[in-house]
Amino acid sequence: MKKFFLTCLQTILVVVALAQSKEEAAIQQIFNEALGRGKAYELLSDLCTNIGPRLSGSPGAAAAVEWSRHVMKDLAFDSVWLQPVMVPHWVRGQKETGRLISRKQGTLLLNVCALGGSVATGPAGVVAGVVEVKSFEELKALGSAGVKGKIVFFNRPMDATKIQTFTAYGGAVEQRANGASEAARLGAVAALVRSMGSNLEDYPHTGSMRYAANVPKIPALAISTKHAELLSRVLKEEKEVQVYLENHSVTLEDAPSFNVVGEIRGSEYANEIIVVGGHLDSWDLGQGAHDDGAGCVQAIEVLRLFKQMGYKPKRTIRAVMFMNEENGLRGGAAYARQAELQRALRDGVQPQVHIAAIESDRGGFVPRGFTVPTDAAAKAKVRSWKPLLEPYGLTDFSTEGGGADIGPLASQGVHLLGLLPDSQRYFNYHHTAEDTIDKVDKRELELGAASMAALVYLIDQFGLK
Amino acid sequence: MKKFFLTCLQTILVVVALAQSKEEAAIQQIFNEALGRGKAYELLSDLCTNIGPRLSGSPGAAAAVEWSRHVMKDLAFDSVWLQPVMVPHWVRGQKETGRLISRKQGTLLLNVCALGGSVATGPAGVVAGVVEVKSFEELKALGSAGVKGKIVFFNRPMDATKIQTFTAYGGAVEQRANGASEAARLGAVAALVRSMGSNLEDYPHTGSMRYAANVPKIPALAISTKHAELLSRVLKEEKEVQVYLENHSVTLEDAPSFNVVGEIRGSEYANEIIVVGGHLDSWDLGQGAHDDGAGCVQAIEVLRLFKQMGYKPKRTIRAVMFMNEENGLRGGAAYARQAELQRALRDGVQPQVHIAAIESDRGGFVPRGFTVPTDAAAKAKVRSWKPLLEPYGLTDFSTEGGGADIGPLASQGVHLLGLLPDSQRYFNYHHTAEDTIDKVDKRELELGAASMAALVYLIDQFGLK
Repeated sequence: MKKFFLTCLQTILVVVALAQSKEEAAIQQIFNEALGRGKAYELLSDLCTNIGPRLSGSPGAAAAVEWSRHVMKDLAFDSVWLQPVMVPHWVRGQKETGRLISRKQGTLLLNVCALGGSVATGPAGVVAGVVEVKSFEELKALGSAGVKGKIVFFNRPMDATKIQTFTAYGGAVEQRANGASEAARLGAVAALVRSMGSNLEDYPHTGSMRYAANVPKIPALAISTKHAELLSRVLKEEKEVQVYLENHSVTLEDAPSFNVVGEIRGSEYANEIIVVGGHLDSWDLGQGAHDDGAGCVQAIEVLRLFKQMGYKPKRTIRAVMFMNEENGLRGGAAYARQAELQRALRDGVQPQVHIAAIESDRGGFVPRGFTVPTDAAAKAKVRSWKPLLEPYGLTDFSTEGGGADIGPLASQGVHLLGLLPDSQRYFNYHHTAEDTIDKVDKRELELGAASMAALVYLIDQFGLK
Repeated sequence: MKKFFLTCLQTILVVVALAQSKEEAAIQQIFNEALGRGKAYELLSDLCTNIGPRLSGSPGAAAAVEWSRHVMKDLAFDSVWLQPVMVPHWVRGQKETGRLISRKQGTLLLNVCALGGSVATGPAGVVAGVVEVKSFEELKALGSAGVKGKIVFFNRPMDATKIQTFTAYGGAVEQRANGASEAARLGAVAALVRSMGSNLEDYPHTGSMRYAANVPKIPALAISTKHAELLSRVLKEEKEVQVYLENHSVTLEDAPSFNVVGEIRGSEYANEIIVVGGHLDSWDLGQGAHDDGAGCVQAIEVLRLFKQMGYKPKRTIRAVMFMNEENGLRGGAAYARQAELQRALRDGVQPQVHIAAIESDRGGFVPRGFTVPTDAAAKAKVRSWKPLLEPYGLTDFSTEGGGADIGPLASQGVHLLGLLPDSQRYFNYHHTAEDTIDKVDKRELELGAASMAALVYLIDQFGLK
C-alpha cells in the first residue's frame, strides 16, 4: 500500500513537472521567436517612416488604418475588420510662435506648441504680461486682480525625485489639462504650460487639454522645459515682461475613422475573447513611435508569434488598434459598445464575452512586469505566474489597472491588464517631435511583444478565475 | 508580568521600526538628491565632450587622469591621489580599410576596425581568399589544407535569444579574443571577426584580443554585423571571394599612467575601506560614455552625495578610477598590490583592510539590482536589504561577483559586488564610435549612482559579516 502511494505520488510529481515544463517551453519558444526572428521592429519602422504622425482625423490616421488592415491580412489572421467611429478633428495649423519681450534682453524666441484642442490666437497673436504660478491654489490666491489681461504661466515641474515617471506626470498634468480654463475664469488671455518632460529640453510637449463649460476659451500652449526655466528666471529679474504667442489651431467637424481589429479564432472557446491592443492614433509632432506605435506592433506581433509557433489558442485572441486615445478616447468607447451588444444572444448568433484586455501604451521600453486586474482572484492568478515570467525580467506586478482604451470595458467585468515597461525614458519623448523610430531599441520592443504574448498565452491556457 | 513582556515587545518593535525608518529615510534622501540635484550627468557630459576617448597610454587617458583628480579635489574629498601604473600602449593608427572583391558585384567597401592589440597589415595590406567558420571546432575540422593562406572569417553571432546580453557576449567573444591565434596555427594570414553587437549595425566593435605564445601574429580586425551578413551571403553565392584588409596599428613601449583615488575618511573605522569604482580608460573609437565613463562619474557621485547629505560614513569610502581595464587590467592589479601591502602594519602605520569593492562597468542604464558576493553570509546579508532597495526598482540579486578591475582584490577576502543595470542596449554601443554621451539617459545614470550610494550606505552601516 505504501508502495502504491509512492507510485501515485511519483506519477503526480511527474505530471506536475511535465505540466510545468509545457508552459516553460511555450514561453521560451515565444521569446526565442520574438528575439531571434521577430517582426515588431520592422513593422514599427515601416509605420513610423512611411506613415509617421497620425492624429485622429488626419490623412496619416487614415493611412495608418489601411496599413494595419493590410499588415494583419498579410499575416493571414482569421479575420481582419474595421470598426467605424467618429473622431474629433483638431488641426494644429502653421507652426506656432513664442517670443519673450524683455527690457534688458530684447526679444527672445520661445519654443512653444499649441496644446491639442486649443483655440487659436489668430494671426494677430496675443501679447500680454505674464504671471507665473506653480499651482491652482497660487492662481486662485492671485484672484482676478492679479490675472486679468495676463498670460498665466503654469510652471510646476514634474517631480524628478519620483522613481516612476508616470507618478511625476500625474502630479503635473492637471496644469496642461485644465490650466487654460482655470486661468480664464480669472480673466487671463492665454495659458502657457511648462512641458510635461522629465528633463531640461529644447522642444515642447503637446497633449490634450479641455475647456470647462461656460468659461471663455483662451489659447493654451506648451513651452519647452528649458524655456520655462528661462522665462521664470527673466520674470524673477525683471518682474514685468511681455510674451507674444501665436497659434493657428482649429477644431473641424468630427471625422469618420476606425478601430482596426484582427483575430485568431479560439479552438475550444471561440466566444471567449482576449484583447491585446494599443492605440493607432498619435500626436502630430513626431512619428508616434513609443506612443503608441510600439503598442500596436506588439499587439500584432502577439498574434503573429502564435501563428508562427503553431500555437492554436483555446480562446479567440484579438489584436485591436484603437483610434483616438490621445484626444477623445472615442475608439475605446466604440469598441466597448460593440462588445456590450455582442454579449447578448441576437438573431441566433452566439454571444461573445471578453475575459481579459491587455494594453501596451507606456512605450516600447524594456518590460519590467504587468499591471494586474483589480479583482482579487484574477490578480492572485496573474501573480501566481510570476515564477514563469521572472526569468524574462518580469518582476513587477504591483500596479493595478490597464490602459485608457480598454478602460470602457471595465463595466462589463472584463479583467484589465497592461504591459509595464521601464518608465525612465518615456517622458523624454512623449508627445514631442522626438518620438521617432530611432528612440526605440529593437530588443526592448521585442521583449515587450514577447512578454505580452506570454501573458496572453497563460490567460488563454488557464483563464483568470 | 505579561504586561511587562508586552511593553518590552512594544519597545522592541518601536526600536525596530525606528531603525528601519532611519535607513529608509537615508536611502530616500540619496535618491532625492541624485535625481533632484545630481551631478553625475553633468560630469559625464564634461568627460565625454571635453576629453572623449582615452585608451591607455593616449593623451586622452592622461587628460582624464587630471580631470578625475581635479573634479574630486573640487568636490573637497578628504584625500585625492594618483597611484602610478605602467600600461600597455597600443595605437590604432590611420583608419582601416576593408574591401570585398567579388566577381559578380565588383569591389565593395567593408566597415572594419582593428582589434585592440592587433599587429598591422602595413601599407600593402593583406589580400586573400576567405573561409567562414562559426566555431573553433569548424576551424579545426578544416585543417591547414582549408585555412593556409586564407583570411579566416569568424561569423558566430551573439545569440539574440539570450535574455541577458552579457550571456550572449560571453558565448561569442572567444572569437575576438583568441580567433587570430587559432587561425594562425593553421596558416591563416588574417582574422576577420563579426562584431560583438546585439543588432545589425553599420559600425564595427573593437575590443581586446591576445596572441598565443609561439604562434605567428596575424592582423585581427572586426567587421560590422551588417557587413558580416553581406560577406557571408556573397560567400554562399560565389564560393570564392577575396578580401582586402589594411590596418596600421602598432604596440609601443609601456607607458606611465595612474589610477585616480579619492576618499572620505571613516569616522569610526577609518582603516576599513569600501571601494566604489569604474574604469577611466576607454576604447579609442567613441567617447567611452557607457564604457565606462558612467561607472567613473557614478563612483564620484556616491561620495559627493554623502557629503551633500551631511552623511559621515563610519568606514572609509573610496572612489577609484581604475586605469587600463580594456587591454591589460594593470590598474586593477596595481590597486590590489597596494591594498595587499597596506594590510600589514609597517613603520607604525595602522593596517588597512578592504571590506568590500563595488564596480559599475555595465553601462549607465536603468539599474535592476546588484551582483552579490560569492561568500554565503555576505550574499545573504545583501539580499536581506532587498526590501529597502525594491522601491527603487532594485530587484535582481541573482548574479554573483563584481567587475574586472576589482577582481584582483578577491584573494584578500574582499567581498566583490557590482551595479547591475539593464543589459538590453549595452551591446549596441560597447566598444564603438557610437558610445557617446547622447546615448546616456540622465535619469538612468542618476538612478545607477543613487543605487550604488544606497548599497555603500548599507554596507557602511552594517558591514557584510
